[in-house]
Amino acid sequence: MERIERHVSHGGSQEVWKHTSTSVGGEMKFGIYLPEAALRGQKCPVLYWLSGLTCTEQNFITKAGAQRYAAEHGVIVVAPDTSPRGSEVADSPDYDLGQGAGFYVNATREPWAKHFRMYDYVVSELPALVEAHFPASDARSISGHSMGGHGALVIALRNPGRYRSVSAFSPIVAPSQVPWGEKALGAYLGDERDAWKQYDAVELVGSASEKLPLLVEQGGGDEFLAQQLRPELLQQACAKAGHPLQLKLRDGYDHSYYFIASFIGEHFAYHAKALA
Amino acid sequence: MERIERHVSHGGSQEVWKHTSTSVGGEMKFGIYLPEAALRGQKCPVLYWLSGLTCTEQNFITKAGAQRYAAEHGVIVVAPDTSPRGSEVADSPDYDLGQGAGFYVNATREPWAKHFRMYDYVVSELPALVEAHFPASDARSISGHSMGGHGALVIALRNPGRYRSVSAFSPIVAPSQVPWGEKALGAYLGDERDAWKQYDAVELVGSASEKLPLLVEQGGGDEFLAQQLRPELLQQACAKAGHPLQLKLRDGYDHSYYFIASFIGEHFAYHAKALA
Repeated sequence: MERIERHVSHGGSQEVWKHTSTSVGGEMKFGIYLPEAALRGQKCPVLYWLSGLTCTEQNFITKAGAQRYAAEHGVIVVAPDTSPRGSEVADSPDYDLGQGAGFYVNATREPWAKHFRMYDYVVSELPALVEAHFPASDARSISGHSMGGHGALVIALRNPGRYRSVSAFSPIVAPSQVPWGEKALGAYLGDERDAWKQYDAVELVGSASEKLPLLVEQGGGDEFLAQQLRPELLQQACAKAGHPLQLKLRDGYDHSYYFIASFIGEHFAYHAKALA
Repeated sequence: MERIERHVSHGGSQEVWKHTSTSVGGEMKFGIYLPEAALRGQKCPVLYWLSGLTCTEQNFITKAGAQRYAAEHGVIVVAPDTSPRGSEVADSPDYDLGQGAGFYVNATREPWAKHFRMYDYVVSELPALVEAHFPASDARSISGHSMGGHGALVIALRNPGRYRSVSAFSPIVAPSQVPWGEKALGAYLGDERDAWKQYDAVELVGSASEKLPLLVEQGGGDEFLAQQLRPELLQQACAKAGHPLQLKLRDGYDHSYYFIASFIGEHFAYHAKALA
């Protein structure tokens, strides 16, 4: 494991590391913010952030303004790249499939199955690495944006007890029912739609054994709202299952990091309370 | 004048506009953040932000996290591109000369003199445009980073009464004495060094008729500190001239936007007080 970037930020340290991942069979990068307490060796809780389509580990750490809140609450923030990368890794010319579009699944179909195992990477390998190499406690929360909001909801719903809290910005709540998800899950998992259910928050809510509340932030001016995001499907599924959901619709806000930056402080306060 | 981007942000609106500039003889872009009060038509004071080498109007608006503070204090923020652009505009293959490196001067030497008139653009044309088209009062402050910190200090020192306050992050305080400045001023103004003095904060401090206090934020881990920035030269010049200077040295911080984002809130509080 090698540190390739380090910047002092809000009294802590914003770093980028690269390492060879066994889950994806190749090099992965992740951003990690260490608040001042962590730099002094004190164990801190960890918020995992999953980014959206086309993003790398850079987008969240440069655009969300999260370091201020991580410093304030003494939380480590880990933001991995959204897929394996490189010339030996399968890809597509489309922005919504292949590199930069891992969808946080374990792919079972060729040519994707060899490297596209982001579910295992985020759920198991990355936290083990973080908790072994940094002063990170095992108090974990998870959040993300768009494809990463989908990832956060799915991962929290499938791993009861593993996360203290979960939230999502503009998540793809029902990938089985929208174009982005149908394309990606079809490619990574094959045409048999039963296999998609394990990666679909709306499907998972019905059978979740732990009723971890879901906090979802959604811009009312989001250009992908009606076709790709459809938060009303999650609302209906949660109502039916009696699963606690707080859906915050924000008039006018779009799908960009300007939206995330506007409300990330509230999400940090929410997670910090659960992590305390 | 045409709006080419609009994003709701912290209750206000982050926009990007393009227009034909008479100062630079071509198209210019600028970012403008309008806090909620301005959207309601209430006149708000304006902070001008000048970015550094290689930057466009995008860097500050996406990376500094400034909208939160602009919203909190009800301040409009205007962040122009750092030079004219386009195939008809002179350029150099170097990152520190030509497009993206306007140095906030009015060039007098060819091939630069035709378009590189960023001093006039920032001092006169842009404020006139902003105050005519947006609910902006004539209460102005100015700040910037690196080359833009140089621009902010020079413009404030040369225009007494025009700005309520000035600050700079990691500014090039003495361009006549450092490689970045010698290269740019030599190219834009010619070899006669007397002509450089009007664009050199350390030179200007000695003859400033208005003692507007200078607030300078400097990272102690800045990779350009010793060779290009040399804040001690400004400290000496201010001491000699009895010009008020607050120089804040911040251990470990580098030249990046992580540094700016860490302290931009304090600068907004400082400017907001002067603008009130």
